Amino acid sequence: MSVYTRVETADVAAFLKDYAVGDLLDLQGIADGIENTNYFVTTSGGRFVLTLFERHADVELEYFLELMVTLADHGLACPRPIMADDGGYLRRLAERPAALVERLSGRAITEPTVEQCAAVGGALGRIHRIGRHVHRRRANERGPAWWRFTADALAGTVPADVSALLDQEIAFQAALDTTRLPRGVIHADLFRDNVLFDNGRLTGVIDFYAACNDILLYDVAICLNDWCIAPDGDFDDARARAFLAAYAGNRPWAADETAALPAMLRAAALRFWLSRLYDLHFPRAGEITHVKDPAHFERILRRRIAAPGRALAILPD
Amino acid sequence: MSVYTRVETADVAAFLKDYAVGDLLDLQGIADGIENTNYFVTTSGGRFVLTLFERHADVELEYFLELMVTLADHGLACPRPIMADDGGYLRRLAERPAALVERLSGRAITEPTVEQCAAVGGALGRIHRIGRHVHRRRANERGPAWWRFTADALAGTVPADVSALLDQEIAFQAALDTTRLPRGVIHADLFRDNVLFDNGRLTGVIDFYAACNDILLYDVAICLNDWCIAPDGDFDDARARAFLAAYAGNRPWAADETAALPAMLRAAALRFWLSRLYDLHFPRAGEITHVKDPAHFERILRRRIAAPGRALAILPD
Repeated sequence: MSVYTRVETADVAAFLKDYAVGDLLDLQGIADGIENTNYFVTTSGGRFVLTLFERHADVELEYFLELMVTLADHGLACPRPIMADDGGYLRRLAERPAALVERLSGRAITEPTVEQCAAVGGALGRIHRIGRHVHRRRANERGPAWWRFTADALAGTVPADVSALLDQEIAFQAALDTTRLPRGVIHADLFRDNVLFDNGRLTGVIDFYAACNDILLYDVAICLNDWCIAPDGDFDDARARAFLAAYAGNRPWAADETAALPAMLRAAALRFWLSRLYDLHFPRAGEITHVKDPAHFERILRRRIAAPGRALAILPD
Repeated sequence: MSVYTRVETADVAAFLKDYAVGDLLDLQGIADGIENTNYFVTTSGGRFVLTLFERHADVELEYFLELMVTLADHGLACPRPIMADDGGYLRRLAERPAALVERLSGRAITEPTVEQCAAVGGALGRIHRIGRHVHRRRANERGPAWWRFTADALAGTVPADVSALLDQEIAFQAALDTTRLPRGVIHADLFRDNVLFDNGRLTGVIDFYAACNDILLYDVAICLNDWCIAPDGDFDDARARAFLAAYAGNRPWAADETAALPAMLRAAALRFWLSRLYDLHFPRAGEITHVKDPAHFERILRRRIAAPGRALAILPD
């Protein structure tokens, strides 16, 4: 569920007085999302999403909001944060940090076409290109230190062969030299549920609340492992090639990235395997969570390890 | 016509390289508009309008663009200018200043409902409220000095009774004390062709290229004279009251504005009567213009002069 914090109509109406968006007409809790409380807000001036942030520090929220503003400034389809009368984006409601953002049309899809993968690849390339204009920085809180912490926490709870594979993969990743790979702002969670389409047209990239500064190719790998695979975890060549070609059209591929792609695909699988294992074995108290199957990313990781050359076949000519 | 300047696909594709909007897919000239050249631009990243400015100085264009950016920042539905890679909004194409803005859905309506008039009144109130955050300033180039210039230019061309009424109205306006009326950023041309609706919902206020700093009530009067009248020029009470109530909900009415409304309605009628007379009698060479009937605003002006108390009846209780 995503409405952790209930707010009353009168409180939201008062909150909106500091914005030039007109009067509150309707307020609806949104049942999606995992970490924040979201409401659809309809006013006489437009349609918005109100988010109450449940766990992030203000300094992180300022990063996410600067990123979303910058992306929207440069024309990316994403929810623009609405500026309050005082010129800021981050305010407080119900004792939580809160922001009002544009509500976009469209909905997430589950079976992407080649054209939709191209649209997402283009959008990711634009995010990486526009990200150069973001001044704030944020570390990846799901990086190698978190991998090690999480694998240790799971040891003894998960089977020994799982722990062994986690240790082996963390060691493999630690031995890589990634210093020559381009870095910048990454979305870090650009799965199918975070892109909206309306009549086949990409209308919005959403949920920037995992964004951080990290290796750009890692973000590409996260997407390839979700958008461009067959049910068995192998790549769908047509979708993968369309994704990568559209990506490179917006953020040109660097020389060292081709050779690094197989390892980044493994890193991306490792990261989501770990978080799914952790959520399964250590569910957060009081949450009605939709636990996602960790074995999905275990299969992907094992497949990427077994066939490292497979990634080279999906690169566009 | 509005495509004064033809641009080639290759030139626009090159122009777009300085934006993070993807590759050009389609380019279509737009047949609306009077003063600028407009193209619909579809890219792999979205849908935009490209405007080549035919007559404004850069300092004026910077004002319009700052205004549109500020309005969009605060959540008003209007075409957001897209930021180029260098952080600017104003660039050059075909030896003209040019800007890329968001393309909105919806279309203009000719027969507004009470609800649509309320939506426009609310939007105008929000424009006036948000306008306080605009730092640049621009004088009204269609103000009293231009009224006098234009009436003098028309003298001898238009009938003597028309010249006499123009002179009389200019003198009446000159004698008014407007120093206590709130001023700020006004749209100055918020006619029915400059508001888009989609399924009854206001999706955009467009064409900010007459915006300037002037009396806010004058902007209200321009709208009342267009959105809230019956075919004979008299007010439609329901639409006018809905417009004014929604307006005041966003930008509260000041004490002196009620008494000044009849005179501002006359000023607004005078201004558009003058420009229509001028366009009729001094058409610009080489333009295929849709000359609008000046007599429409002559009738409105005469009606507003004859029944100054009528305006008080349309004020909400």
